Amino acid sequence: MPLITLLTDFGTADYFVAAVKGVILSANPEARIVDITHDIPPHDIESAAFTLLAAHSTFPPGTIHVAVVDPGVGSERRPLLINVNDQFFVGPDNGVFSYVCDGGAPDAFQLTNEKSWRHPVSATFHGRDIFAPVAAALSLGAKPGDLGTRTTDFVRLAPLCPLVSDSKLEARIIHIDRFGNCVTNLTQDDLTAEMIAAGASLRINGKLVKSFRRYFAEATDSGEKLFAIWGSAGFLEIAATDQSAAKLLKAQRGDAVLVSVQPL
Amino acid sequence: MPLITLLTDFGTADYFVAAVKGVILSANPEARIVDITHDIPPHDIESAAFTLLAAHSTFPPGTIHVAVVDPGVGSERRPLLINVNDQFFVGPDNGVFSYVCDGGAPDAFQLTNEKSWRHPVSATFHGRDIFAPVAAALSLGAKPGDLGTRTTDFVRLAPLCPLVSDSKLEARIIHIDRFGNCVTNLTQDDLTAEMIAAGASLRINGKLVKSFRRYFAEATDSGEKLFAIWGSAGFLEIAATDQSAAKLLKAQRGDAVLVSVQPL
Amino acid sequence: MPLITLLTDFGTADYFVAAVKGVILSANPEARIVDITHDIPPHDIESAAFTLLAAHSTFPPGTIHVAVVDPGVGSERRPLLINVNDQFFVGPDNGVFSYVCDGGAPDAFQLTNEKSWRHPVSATFHGRDIFAPVAAALSLGAKPGDLGTRTTDFVRLAPLCPLVSDSKLEARIIHIDRFGNCVTNLTQDDLTAEMIAAGASLRINGKLVKSFRRYFAEATDSGEKLFAIWGSAGFLEIAATDQSAAKLLKAQRGDAVLVSVQPL
Repeated sequence: MPLITLLTDFGTADYFVAAVKGVILSANPEARIVDITHDIPPHDIESAAFTLLAAHSTFPPGTIHVAVVDPGVGSERRPLLINVNDQFFVGPDNGVFSYVCDGGAPDAFQLTNEKSWRHPVSATFHGRDIFAPVAAALSLGAKPGDLGTRTTDFVRLAPLCPLVSDSKLEARIIHIDRFGNCVTNLTQDDLTAEMIAAGASLRINGKLVKSFRRYFAEATDSGEKLFAIWGSAGFLEIAATDQSAAKLLKAQRGDAVLVSVQPL
Repeated sequence: MPLITLLTDFGTADYFVAAVKGVILSANPEARIVDITHDIPPHDIESAAFTLLAAHSTFPPGTIHVAVVDPGVGSERRPLLINVNDQFFVGPDNGVFSYVCDGGAPDAFQLTNEKSWRHPVSATFHGRDIFAPVAAALSLGAKPGDLGTRTTDFVRLAPLCPLVSDSKLEARIIHIDRFGNCVTNLTQDDLTAEMIAAGASLRINGKLVKSFRRYFAEATDSGEKLFAIWGSAGFLEIAATDQSAAKLLKAQRGDAVLVSVQPL
Repeated sequence: MPLITLLTDFGTADYFVAAVKGVILSANPEARIVDITHDIPPHDIESAAFTLLAAHSTFPPGTIHVAVVDPGVGSERRPLLINVNDQFFVGPDNGVFSYVCDGGAPDAFQLTNEKSWRHPVSATFHGRDIFAPVAAALSLGAKPGDLGTRTTDFVRLAPLCPLVSDSKLEARIIHIDRFGNCVTNLTQDDLTAEMIAAGASLRINGKLVKSFRRYFAEATDSGEKLFAIWGSAGFLEIAATDQSAAKLLKAQRGDAVLVSVQPL
């Protein structure tokens, strides 16, 4: 029972998502399709890369992820298929698979077998005409080598990790979720339990966060609204009691998060 | 063919919904998942309870409904499984299943079998780590008693019914839909055809509604914009011709609806 | 494996979509349901008709499309089933299937067999009580003649084509997508490659568009922000570099697009 996920910036009001699903289901009526999201901000490759990173790990081996955030559609940018973490990733070669690849050993293929595409190929909708039929072909048992030629030269975003030097740790906000929680790029390897116990604090947009909580509704002695919490994607998040931390901090993705760590 | 529905306040822009689906489909590739909605206002338990009430009744016996509107995630609030109306309901013990339970004889279980959960359990995402795997286990044939221990002590919201006294009937707005229709908590048991025929009227936010229609586009003699109509969830709704009644009334959920009934 | 698509103006925050799916899956647990969109602007029949036209063609023969944009629900407007282009279309008789029908030879039936409906039929929700059960019945093998009686007298919108006279070509904007691209009703039959090569230009809301591109990111010599491009639905679109053409043009659906064609 092949599983295909979709992640795009198409929104849900237009015909785009349905057109992609129609192509997949016409080729493979047995395919099961799961929407990751279609609400990636238009052309926002970093946001797509983060969301794919956070979502893909609960899916079973062999899952085929189609990611279409594709401002370069129709240009010379290449169509790509990557096999990493026992899953497949299909989409444009623009960095959208970077964060997933950072955690594994990617085996990448430039999609070159035009026989597996839908024709005529629209210059504005490769999601429908290239990526959907390629995903359907994979779900029917095609091998990556049937669909393209191996490549090692594909676009990678800068890794999703904080800047570390002897004296400081500079992180950034990599995502803001529906609840206004600000996801940073700090993992428990970057900011250890020992560092937190020793009194680590964060500074974002001029505000200091020194409270660390285990869960959102945890009672606080200090009365501070802002607090840090380990989020479900494995990153430290800045949250606020019963309100949006992003609004309180006037935060946007990319904003710096400076970590002060007491000497251990 | 087990059917699992999802109702959350996660929104559709983040990775949350997909992570839940990945867990379910990893455990049971045959599971069929239906989204009720993910657009419950953040932390709005009453709204979730109403939407679940209105949506669940068209689903077949044995359907497993997962509802995650969970401001207390990670705290001492208990994870719950309820069997009522021949369907299963999985989610936090915070009242979200109240209105469904009011219509049946609920058999409730506190989820205690941690072996059926996904580990490590995040303190911020029980939808992915507790409720999704429990729903998958149910869909694979697990019995409630395998997953938890029976309890009669679970959170109930105040019942969804109007206040009735000898001389007056006080209802309230329990939901406002996309079209601006204001759903009240009045049923045909509360406000009978005889009472309407006798000239019943409603007062909301200082405005009087005395016209009752059978369908939205029904012609009106009076030229009144606001009218009452029996809605598809079984409750009386306040609507307006070609516009939002909620805007006309400046109505919000919870606003009082005073019913004047002529002596029969 | 029967395939049923849904296109509505229900939004995704209410219980409406789930209620429809519950009815379908209760009647036919094997049915596969694909959402086209539920974000059609409320009561906007033309928008629904365009989206259905653009989305349906990638689906396989036998697909059952349910379209519920239905301001006349409960009135005398008839429930309809149309067989055209080897697919089925179920919904209200208000023109929503017009553009699909314009491209084929529609065989239409007024739904009259009330035994195939869900009872009691709500006067405000035929999507749940008439169209969903009829779609499920079709997916289980019912024939159109089992569900209704043939009719040739059904509502048609004005055809989706530009006005042509000897001296001028007047088109209009028929859709604005998430990216702000303005879809016109010009096809390659209306505006040929020869006409474009000869210097055709467009005028919309007082602005001139004379650049034609093959893909969105194509480099431009002229520095002009607005350009025309053949879109994925087969129509000419007005787009803008890295921004919304609709905002630049203050365009709305229905706005005139005047085409100036140089003598060939």
